[in-house]
Amino acid sequence: MPSARSRTVTSPSALTGAAESAADARIDPATLPGRPCSIAAAMEIIGEKWALLAVREVVLGNHRFSEIVRNTGAPRDRMAARLKVLVHAGVLERRPYSDAPPRSDYHLTAAGRALAPVLDALLAWGDEWAVSDPPVARFHHDHELRLTSVCRECGEPVRGRDVRREGRLGWDDRGPGSPAV
Amino acid sequence: MPSARSRTVTSPSALTGAAESAADARIDPATLPGRPCSIAAAMEIIGEKWALLAVREVVLGNHRFSEIVRNTGAPRDRMAARLKVLVHAGVLERRPYSDAPPRSDYHLTAAGRALAPVLDALLAWGDEWAVSDPPVARFHHDHELRLTSVCRECGEPVRGRDVRREGRLGWDDRGPGSPAV
Repeated sequence: MPSARSRTVTSPSALTGAAESAADARIDPATLPGRPCSIAAAMEIIGEKWALLAVREVVLGNHRFSEIVRNTGAPRDRMAARLKVLVHAGVLERRPYSDAPPRSDYHLTAAGRALAPVLDALLAWGDEWAVSDPPVARFHHDHELRLTSVCRECGEPVRGRDVRREGRLGWDDRGPGSPAV
Repeated sequence: MPSARSRTVTSPSALTGAAESAADARIDPATLPGRPCSIAAAMEIIGEKWALLAVREVVLGNHRFSEIVRNTGAPRDRMAARLKVLVHAGVLERRPYSDAPPRSDYHLTAAGRALAPVLDALLAWGDEWAVSDPPVARFHHDHELRLTSVCRECGEPVRGRDVRREGRLGWDDRGPGSPAV
């Protein structure tokens, strides 16, 4: 996916070095424990509940540390540590909003904005399976909002039997392949 | 969403009590720290990296504890604890496959199967933003598979400005509402 690669380099934040550190933070899937897998790599960055809840707050327009702490209910020290990871990974970026005293708040990068489908999917699953009653109703135009996925290329719903996977690092669905002799 | 509620009661697993314990495990969003939100509730159940990686393995057809441990690279004790949570929450169920010695393996419930869009979204995000190179290529018919979301009701792509949210527990996008006097 060269377009994604080059986007981090050509974005305005490349000038600040933020994009470079984000690129450095990319994970070589061969170094993951177990299956080399982008889900596992994603979970290394956002697989902690405070991380995604922080992103949720920034999506909703709450950029300041105090707002993020209040609205997530996270312990301040754990949220501070988590925000550092998200900034290092290039999901959020800090922007100064006051010189005296020096203060900055958190904004989404392109990678952070790209988490919207993850949040949408978790919200839909949580509404249906995790809560006693959905706490927020969402409407699209005049109907209740429920999302479904289609193939971006052909527009069809995607059935498992129409999908073919090609692993590049010696694993198949069952596990690590037989070691080469 | 009464259909989701009643599904847990009318499913065959209701006869075994599994659905009842899953229903008991549902979270009252008003009891969550911070914003009452189905994303937060979902993360209470699956917001730990070994949890979703265990579900990934079962989706791929690897049902036994030893397979799940090998393919995730998780420490055995942490995976055992995580699988217990997933069974209690009704995401996985145990099924005996041997009497002597007594052995059982893990299978997806309806709630577990419903996690497919979460895994898809994490995979797509991870491919684009978390890894140095995607470890698995996926093809739909003859083209590379990339998913996009549309409204299930009207089939349109969903833009933020067309979505209206109605919170039911006194919070709005900014935070907790002014306390009632």
